[in-house]
Amino acid sequence: MATKYKLNYFNTRGQGEAIRFLLSYGEVPFEDNRVSIHEWHQLKRATPFGKLPTLEVNNEVGYQTLAVCRYLGRQFKIAGNDAWEEAQIDAVADTIKDLNTETLDVYLAPDCESKEKLREKLVNETFPFYFSKLDKMVLDNGGFFVGGQLSWVDIFFTSGVEGYNVVGMDEDLLKNYPNLSDLNKNIRSLPAIQSWLKKRPFSAF
Amino acid sequence: MATKYKLNYFNTRGQGEAIRFLLSYGEVPFEDNRVSIHEWHQLKRATPFGKLPTLEVNNEVGYQTLAVCRYLGRQFKIAGNDAWEEAQIDAVADTIKDLNTETLDVYLAPDCESKEKLREKLVNETFPFYFSKLDKMVLDNGGFFVGGQLSWVDIFFTSGVEGYNVVGMDEDLLKNYPNLSDLNKNIRSLPAIQSWLKKRPFSAF
Repeated sequence: MATKYKLNYFNTRGQGEAIRFLLSYGEVPFEDNRVSIHEWHQLKRATPFGKLPTLEVNNEVGYQTLAVCRYLGRQFKIAGNDAWEEAQIDAVADTIKDLNTETLDVYLAPDCESKEKLREKLVNETFPFYFSKLDKMVLDNGGFFVGGQLSWVDIFFTSGVEGYNVVGMDEDLLKNYPNLSDLNKNIRSLPAIQSWLKKRPFSAF
Repeated sequence: MATKYKLNYFNTRGQGEAIRFLLSYGEVPFEDNRVSIHEWHQLKRATPFGKLPTLEVNNEVGYQTLAVCRYLGRQFKIAGNDAWEEAQIDAVADTIKDLNTETLDVYLAPDCESKEKLREKLVNETFPFYFSKLDKMVLDNGGFFVGGQLSWVDIFFTSGVEGYNVVGMDEDLLKNYPNLSDLNKNIRSLPAIQSWLKKRPFSAF
């Protein structure tokens, strides 16, 4: 019997979109359960640690975005060819998560003044620092982050690029990083991902 | 030829201690390179993303604490028996990392007033929330976090318990959580870990 996947997340891209991208890449059907704020108040206590996304796999509950992405990467055979490649993929994923956390800190800043100060640092220092290193990595690895072939962290990265719009960045964000820009375009051009992009509901972030 | 491990970290327990615990558990010799602040200014640019710890494995550089811990867990055959167990181990590890991040936020609070406010929330809400769930998990899994047997996340958890002293918590922190408390004692009693605890240099945190 086919594996039954149910993603529980809010009606946004956010953290859940990486999982939606991976499930789409794997071309497996999944229930895309979008939880309203009203439902969330009831559901929260039933989650492992009060957070979404969770991914139910044949009714067993997986949680933590990267743990779920890594699991799906293994299922779809895009999780590295050996233990060292796996470790490199994991390290890039945690690095991108660090960057996403810094971005979220700007979005969540308590007032305009601190937000603008944090945003300037993010745009002028943090993004260039991370993106220049990540761009070099993709250049050195034949168009992918690790091992010269597609892995789940390439999809994880791409699924998050749009998310930088929460701090006012658009797709031009990658214009100075040709290898990251190509990686982003290539992943988004995959037929299975294209199909997802066309059918997903609109959300602002 | 035996694998050559070199850990680069500061002269503290901090993030590096989890890796030291795991290398000790695996009973492999490793160079415990403790980087002074002076050295760090020179070394920083040579790290993958300006951060420590890094673990050199036969001169190749691994980074991101959890990626390194997971890699060592696999080398030492304590990384789960199947893909689902691996995902559960990963999810617990990221959950503990979330808790550690909240703890660090208290430590790094910019002034006494906000520190005390954050600390109260941590001690009265956050720790009880996480620890009660983690305690139940250990109860349900025969004394370990996942699958009724030791995995690297048990060692990751234990290596961090002392770290909660940065917000003024001592070992009593676990007194209301008998299963976590036993897990912590059991891991610390393993001969290979005991041996590490006896020989490691003192550091305050």
